Amino acid sequence: MPGTAPSLESKFCRSRQETLRRYLSENDLDGAVFFDRHYIYSLTGYWHEQPLTPTALLLETDGGATIVTHFEDPVAPAADKVVPYVPNHLFTLKPNLCGCVTEVLNPLLAGLKIVGTEQQTPAALIEGPVCRDISEDYQYLRRHKDDDEVAALEYTIRSADRAYTEAKRLIEPGILEVEVMASMLEEATYSAGEVLSGWGQDYACGVPGGFARKRKIEESELYVLDVGVGIRGYRSDLCRTFSVAKNPTDEQYAAWEKVVEVMEMGKGMIRPGQSCKEMFEAVTEALDGWNGFSFFHHAGHGIGLDAHEVPRINSGWDDTFEVGDVVAFEPGLYGGALHGGIRLENNYLVTEDGNRQLSHFPLDLV
Amino acid sequence: MPGTAPSLESKFCRSRQETLRRYLSENDLDGAVFFDRHYIYSLTGYWHEQPLTPTALLLETDGGATIVTHFEDPVAPAADKVVPYVPNHLFTLKPNLCGCVTEVLNPLLAGLKIVGTEQQTPAALIEGPVCRDISEDYQYLRRHKDDDEVAALEYTIRSADRAYTEAKRLIEPGILEVEVMASMLEEATYSAGEVLSGWGQDYACGVPGGFARKRKIEESELYVLDVGVGIRGYRSDLCRTFSVAKNPTDEQYAAWEKVVEVMEMGKGMIRPGQSCKEMFEAVTEALDGWNGFSFFHHAGHGIGLDAHEVPRINSGWDDTFEVGDVVAFEPGLYGGALHGGIRLENNYLVTEDGNRQLSHFPLDLV
Repeated sequence: MPGTAPSLESKFCRSRQETLRRYLSENDLDGAVFFDRHYIYSLTGYWHEQPLTPTALLLETDGGATIVTHFEDPVAPAADKVVPYVPNHLFTLKPNLCGCVTEVLNPLLAGLKIVGTEQQTPAALIEGPVCRDISEDYQYLRRHKDDDEVAALEYTIRSADRAYTEAKRLIEPGILEVEVMASMLEEATYSAGEVLSGWGQDYACGVPGGFARKRKIEESELYVLDVGVGIRGYRSDLCRTFSVAKNPTDEQYAAWEKVVEVMEMGKGMIRPGQSCKEMFEAVTEALDGWNGFSFFHHAGHGIGLDAHEVPRINSGWDDTFEVGDVVAFEPGLYGGALHGGIRLENNYLVTEDGNRQLSHFPLDLV
Repeated sequence: MPGTAPSLESKFCRSRQETLRRYLSENDLDGAVFFDRHYIYSLTGYWHEQPLTPTALLLETDGGATIVTHFEDPVAPAADKVVPYVPNHLFTLKPNLCGCVTEVLNPLLAGLKIVGTEQQTPAALIEGPVCRDISEDYQYLRRHKDDDEVAALEYTIRSADRAYTEAKRLIEPGILEVEVMASMLEEATYSAGEVLSGWGQDYACGVPGGFARKRKIEESELYVLDVGVGIRGYRSDLCRTFSVAKNPTDEQYAAWEKVVEVMEMGKGMIRPGQSCKEMFEAVTEALDGWNGFSFFHHAGHGIGLDAHEVPRINSGWDDTFEVGDVVAFEPGLYGGALHGGIRLENNYLVTEDGNRQLSHFPLDLV
């Protein structure tokens, strides 16, 4: 049965607003103007489910949170004001929908000198204040996940699990990658109970990653399914690997055992204060070169509203785990004899005493 | 079997670029900076299939078409230059991806004073020229569809047809609306052979429209399925209505016959020089009030890259059909006894001597 996405809680939305307001105040910004539906949901609890029309949030540094939407009576637990706009004329959508939003938004900006914007804010249509892109800083501000956000991420994991169950049912030599992907999408959508806000990523078989192709999967291959499911903006990131033959070779099985072992080792390092870079190095040390196979990519990253967030389990950054981080950890082994490689990925919440594993779909190759 | 999206033709992309360049020149704009993947595809033939990362097009009024993308060696038949950017660092995505694009784009803008932008252009990150939103005008410039665009729309119709076939197979009393929607999405995706660029719209049963709910459809109802399928940005818009019982009442059947009759009548009016408003009035005259039922919405609209484009078959605008228009025409009847109503929608290309119907899925209620 389809589930129901858990609502975000007003008190947490307000707390996230306060975090953003503090930042705005410290950076002499008079407010923030966001158009990203995902960000608006996170900050107000208002989910704009209509992908054809835009919506906007004005968060004033010394004022309230105002949503501009065309839905009457929207569920917006942490909004102080809802201002309507009209996207259509006698049912037909107008040609510049963001312009329809800014037509009612711009008068609300009178008196604001500089506002923070993100990548989806159509700054060319904002009149009055100067727009300063704060996308990067806003990703850092979102790093700590509140309980309602963890629940939202767990809900997306539930849909990914459904998709994996379907994949295991379908995978056999000769099926097209795109058929596996489309069927997994159906299951994830049905399970979510609504159209997904995000869907990715790796559905190519016999290789470490890539989009689904119109190609038949082959008996000898391992199928690395790296699946990102987004619901109302929150996006989990899991990976499982399945043997197409349902009968892995000894070499494939041994490599799988090694990745599972490293997954346990790494899980032990996901705790407050641990250097993410050191964890990356420990994982790489354990995997890269093992039995002649390689481990060539990052070991993981934060998740939330963007596909990759802070902290990064990667030698290219020097992050440290903090309580409230939600991270994807993804060890793997690759090389010719594996016919695609093995990657396993779970999601974890960093807690005071270590971590809580959020994803539980079996790791097995078969 | 899944199909393969037809490629856009270089000569038509170039012609569309020239139309935009003429506009830029006439409006004293030195170029256009677009981030909308769909617009970039239409203008250059380059499809950026990666939804997690942005891409950009700079079209100089007195120069070439430059694409900024992180894909090496992209298929970009009508681009003069491809400039790479790096969205990740050792596999992890950077926190401000549009900023990564503008980092390499901004130096190319040196010397440009004013550029045209659209709703997805992150103007706050553009340095140098003033950004002027031209979204509305650009919709008008796209009105005439070239042969390759018509083929792209026909390809999306093929996927919608697959989705309708699946719906007819599944529909029976007790199935959830969201199950029907998810299964149709799977079929459309499989048929397209790739992840869709757009998916909508009305999957609520027993009512004239709305999103899919976790609700069981009922025997007495008519199921109005208004389906928008987008592939590489091009989006068709069809509607069929099915009897859940596979046994419409006399009243439902008579209303269906009436809508089919008006569909034929309206099709006869889709020809160059015809006032769209007059067509709307003729359709409304024929339907609204018939047998006590209502016709309360627009009679159709152009399609292409936005869900609704020019021309509008609507009393709120005064458009006239032109050769090259591709329009959706959607007569309907609604009222209590119909238990949801009847809407039928086909897509047509306006030709010299009338129109060519692009969609052919049977109109039947059963």
